[in-house]
Amino acid sequence: MMDKLRFCLIGAGRAGMVHARNLAFNIKNADITAIVDSDSSVASERRQELGVADLFTDLDEALARDLFDAVVVVTPTFAHRDIVVKCAEAKKHVFCEKPMSIRPDEARDMIEAASKNRVKLQIGFMRRFDPPFLHARDVIESGELGEVMVIKSVGRGPGLPPPWTYNVSESNGLLGEVNSHDFDSTRWLAGGEYRRIYAEAVNRKVTKLKDQYPDFYDNVVCTVRFDNDIIGTIDGTCPADYGYDARTEIVLTGGLISIGEVRGQAYFSCDVKGVIKENAWKSWRNRFKDAYIDEMRSFINSVFEDKDTLVTGRDGLAAVQAVVTANKSLKSGAVEEVSS
Amino acid sequence: MMDKLRFCLIGAGRAGMVHARNLAFNIKNADITAIVDSDSSVASERRQELGVADLFTDLDEALARDLFDAVVVVTPTFAHRDIVVKCAEAKKHVFCEKPMSIRPDEARDMIEAASKNRVKLQIGFMRRFDPPFLHARDVIESGELGEVMVIKSVGRGPGLPPPWTYNVSESNGLLGEVNSHDFDSTRWLAGGEYRRIYAEAVNRKVTKLKDQYPDFYDNVVCTVRFDNDIIGTIDGTCPADYGYDARTEIVLTGGLISIGEVRGQAYFSCDVKGVIKENAWKSWRNRFKDAYIDEMRSFINSVFEDKDTLVTGRDGLAAVQAVVTANKSLKSGAVEEVSS
Amino acid sequence: MMDKLRFCLIGAGRAGMVHARNLAFNIKNADITAIVDSDSSVASERRQELGVADLFTDLDEALARDLFDAVVVVTPTFAHRDIVVKCAEAKKHVFCEKPMSIRPDEARDMIEAASKNRVKLQIGFMRRFDPPFLHARDVIESGELGEVMVIKSVGRGPGLPPPWTYNVSESNGLLGEVNSHDFDSTRWLAGGEYRRIYAEAVNRKVTKLKDQYPDFYDNVVCTVRFDNDIIGTIDGTCPADYGYDARTEIVLTGGLISIGEVRGQAYFSCDVKGVIKENAWKSWRNRFKDAYIDEMRSFINSVFEDKDTLVTGRDGLAAVQAVVTANKSLKSGAVEEVSS
Amino acid sequence: MMDKLRFCLIGAGRAGMVHARNLAFNIKNADITAIVDSDSSVASERRQELGVADLFTDLDEALARDLFDAVVVVTPTFAHRDIVVKCAEAKKHVFCEKPMSIRPDEARDMIEAASKNRVKLQIGFMRRFDPPFLHARDVIESGELGEVMVIKSVGRGPGLPPPWTYNVSESNGLLGEVNSHDFDSTRWLAGGEYRRIYAEAVNRKVTKLKDQYPDFYDNVVCTVRFDNDIIGTIDGTCPADYGYDARTEIVLTGGLISIGEVRGQAYFSCDVKGVIKENAWKSWRNRFKDAYIDEMRSFINSVFEDKDTLVTGRDGLAAVQAVVTANKSLKSGAVEEVSS
Repeated sequence: MMDKLRFCLIGAGRAGMVHARNLAFNIKNADITAIVDSDSSVASERRQELGVADLFTDLDEALARDLFDAVVVVTPTFAHRDIVVKCAEAKKHVFCEKPMSIRPDEARDMIEAASKNRVKLQIGFMRRFDPPFLHARDVIESGELGEVMVIKSVGRGPGLPPPWTYNVSESNGLLGEVNSHDFDSTRWLAGGEYRRIYAEAVNRKVTKLKDQYPDFYDNVVCTVRFDNDIIGTIDGTCPADYGYDARTEIVLTGGLISIGEVRGQAYFSCDVKGVIKENAWKSWRNRFKDAYIDEMRSFINSVFEDKDTLVTGRDGLAAVQAVVTANKSLKSGAVEEVSS
Repeated sequence: MMDKLRFCLIGAGRAGMVHARNLAFNIKNADITAIVDSDSSVASERRQELGVADLFTDLDEALARDLFDAVVVVTPTFAHRDIVVKCAEAKKHVFCEKPMSIRPDEARDMIEAASKNRVKLQIGFMRRFDPPFLHARDVIESGELGEVMVIKSVGRGPGLPPPWTYNVSESNGLLGEVNSHDFDSTRWLAGGEYRRIYAEAVNRKVTKLKDQYPDFYDNVVCTVRFDNDIIGTIDGTCPADYGYDARTEIVLTGGLISIGEVRGQAYFSCDVKGVIKENAWKSWRNRFKDAYIDEMRSFINSVFEDKDTLVTGRDGLAAVQAVVTANKSLKSGAVEEVSS
Repeated sequence: MMDKLRFCLIGAGRAGMVHARNLAFNIKNADITAIVDSDSSVASERRQELGVADLFTDLDEALARDLFDAVVVVTPTFAHRDIVVKCAEAKKHVFCEKPMSIRPDEARDMIEAASKNRVKLQIGFMRRFDPPFLHARDVIESGELGEVMVIKSVGRGPGLPPPWTYNVSESNGLLGEVNSHDFDSTRWLAGGEYRRIYAEAVNRKVTKLKDQYPDFYDNVVCTVRFDNDIIGTIDGTCPADYGYDARTEIVLTGGLISIGEVRGQAYFSCDVKGVIKENAWKSWRNRFKDAYIDEMRSFINSVFEDKDTLVTGRDGLAAVQAVVTANKSLKSGAVEEVSS
Repeated sequence: MMDKLRFCLIGAGRAGMVHARNLAFNIKNADITAIVDSDSSVASERRQELGVADLFTDLDEALARDLFDAVVVVTPTFAHRDIVVKCAEAKKHVFCEKPMSIRPDEARDMIEAASKNRVKLQIGFMRRFDPPFLHARDVIESGELGEVMVIKSVGRGPGLPPPWTYNVSESNGLLGEVNSHDFDSTRWLAGGEYRRIYAEAVNRKVTKLKDQYPDFYDNVVCTVRFDNDIIGTIDGTCPADYGYDARTEIVLTGGLISIGEVRGQAYFSCDVKGVIKENAWKSWRNRFKDAYIDEMRSFINSVFEDKDTLVTGRDGLAAVQAVVTANKSLKSGAVEEVSS
């Protein structure tokens, strides 16, 4: 039996490095043994930090050698399908960042490839490993607060997304890149499938993009309805300079559950004017620090024990379908049904 | 000059008594001098508590005598129009509880009657007198956090509403009786007029009403868009047994404003199991205790100083229009424009 | 039966005006009918605001006429004894602000005068009327969290106290003027009597007073032990520019109770740097706004229904004894027993 | 250069396993290669979990072989001195849990042995690696809130301490085993040395120990004064069944800093009765999870880069001196000076 799962990082950007550093410094039964990134200068710097021997600009070359057992795919979303299918066919286990894909058919190809090649496939919805979210789910399942009626989920984050996301019809925009998490965790907590969605959006901050990308938006609110008649709202703002803000509240027949808060750590100061100051969560890297480690440990465990992953391709697909439907609503100005 | 404004309470129910007790025990330049209520036994008990001399089951009789200068109208909504018009024509100043009316045309009649008879008309949107809401508005107007992009408002409360509200097409239901406040305060904070609304609703708690009142709902979420392109959500749950929950958050280009919290007072205990216990706000009577006094002081002041009221009939009308539009969306299953 | 209790305000300073405004504007079964203040110009301005007819610079003159049934004594502490004794002998009910007196013997004179003349005497420990404190006491008495072991009480406030307090051996200083409240509420929650006290103090802010008033301190921490073996700490800072900060925590055999927080209202904003801002309680006038009204209603009720007041002279005396003992400890540098 | 620092765990109890698991599963440039524990059955089970090859009941045997470069000492406090001196003489770097020792002279021996043998010595005051504490220290050092005047530190935890601690004159009891942390972090934040201490204590929960161990206490409050005239309080309760409670507040000339809260994670629920429920921190293992990893990374770094450790033997000694002085105060019933 292997005692360490060897990983190749595909995409050595900021998000990729979160996984890479966890694998290199925090998780002992894993190793990063290769990096694939089209930008060899960036990758080279990362190699130094991570202490990785092998560096590739071409995925095929990396797959041609027996250097790793699994891949972490953290490229732009539009590249997920081809990479994941290719890795699955090379019998590599796949951990793929969210959103799973731009279009539902791509996600279906990925699911099929993993299934046919008997490799594990996990999607990076790390909220499912966060103690407050897990606690909420436990309370819901216990039935002690009755049945879920309404779920509201907020996802806001700092930083302008990369240029390839500006054209929403090709990228799914903010709803895909940021609110995928909300679409997944809301569905996970609701225990049902999305039925219909209405969305309103506006570009209020990145106004310089208006001419070239008329469908770009930086604020969006959605009304959703599940097939089990749970209703809710999902809203997103990006860039939300004030911080990374992921909160969810659940109204049940017997009470309320609240997950998360704007405040980032148990600390405040107060000055002579009586102004209390605290810090908002700065980044998903801080807010979900442990969840990122735990989702990877869970994935490694699925491989070693040959069990299903806890976040499947089917989960990834459902979020893609919801995102696509919400964007369709923005285009049509009407309520849209989610195709199953 | 009068040194006390004499009031007649019209409708001596639970909400009416909040105003009546403030006038009788907490506000010194006002007196309750008459009560009009169709139920003479209830009114008689109230008279005892309030120390009021004159009791009527008929409004005309009360108006026939010179007993009061102003009225507080706290009857079921459908009765507002006729009462307010009649009082205005009798030259009484009118404080009218929310929602102003069921239909916009009723609200217009009320506005016209007050205007023609030169009496003051104020609608009971007491949130506009609550320090956190006022503070939020000050911050918005200061511009220090940039421009408003998104507003989300929650209104939930305990207690099944009265039977006359079950038929939503006649009463406007939960959106009218509870979320009028959210429609008003969101508009007040947004500084614009509602343009379009989409709503989803469900009856999940009062399921025994389903057969007789198929359009009754106890949970609702709305997506709204203003004519200044501010977008947002408004949601309501009633009965929400856990407490009275009124919170608003505002996303701006330069930050976030959060108003209100679920917790009801600065107190908690923690038992041997490590379970921390606090109490949710039990009622609007507690949460907005001072705002109820302050809105009434403001109304009295408007009369004594002959100034415009701070919450006008036009404000009441705008909320009615939004509520009617949201209910229309529920019926049509489509996004609806708000007629101006 | 009187339907309104007529009050004379003795001492029309800032604290006196809190009571006066409550009596004049917020409590309907009371009236302010006279003001006694040595500074006639200040009193004259107050008379205008309060709408009071009679103004005196001399207490005897005021007492000579039948203008009021009760007095609110809000003068410097050293004047309490003579005023209260004189008013009691004139058969006026007495509401006396805290601290009751500088020395225990003065407090005893006041208790005796009220008793002999059969008038009510209440000391202004308004915390006993604050819902969080009342809730805490209910939980303690219910026994659901076991027995009290430790109590910690903080009292900090903005603003330099008046010059007459600088000489601590004559005024009892910060411990008397500010922490009297903590000594009272801790004793009330502990259900026992102070046995011994050790205190440490320092002058760190008002250093300009060091030469003239070497025993002046603006920060103090005390260790206390009750005769029922409850132990605790009391600490004070004044001026504490950041706000008015009154918090208490109680450790029980079966849990913890926490009263109060630094934050002043349910509101926060967050700017682009992720700095969350809230406001500390600015003043005891805001933090205990309702408690000030409720203690006065309770006093009026005691008079009208001829019942004992809820905060007796004995309570006032116990706090004076504790304060005096803590100051004695500061002088001696040793632990001091509280004489009974 | 070594790429991994090899550790021997000395003392495989609950606290030892926190360090051992971090070294085995979370920190990649370290390995646990040996365990020394007098109880071979416990140690054997731990070996299984940690995947450690070598197991000893005798330290000398372990030191006789070249199995490790450093030791983590997590035995009862009274054994620290001999073990640390022996390991230092065997040229092993030493990470020693708090409290450093029972008596100051033991701590001095340990410091000298480390110094003479040129090995690193770090004491396990992990609060110094906790972001809220670090943030507080940064704010203090920045001077933006002025100078520190008062520091209050609370340390409470669940679970009866082991029997060897019952005899306080031999063990230092609760003040040593729990509040050592408070004595260290308060000194670290104050930037001064303890000058004098007064303590009050009581046994209120573990009353069955009263006869056999009359000086045992489970609740203690202390008043402290530093040589730079900062004053403060330190209090402890153990067992405090409700949870692990470590909070500190700092009053400065220009404001307030608050570190920590009772609540354990960003989550709450609220039931139909309006009771909001959250969880207190259950254990130091959760509250300071990352700080335990970070202190160990820092220690490893000190070894690899041959730098001073961030928590020195001198720091450990200062806390022992303060604890001993506080216990002396309990015995004498008087204020005690801290000998330097």
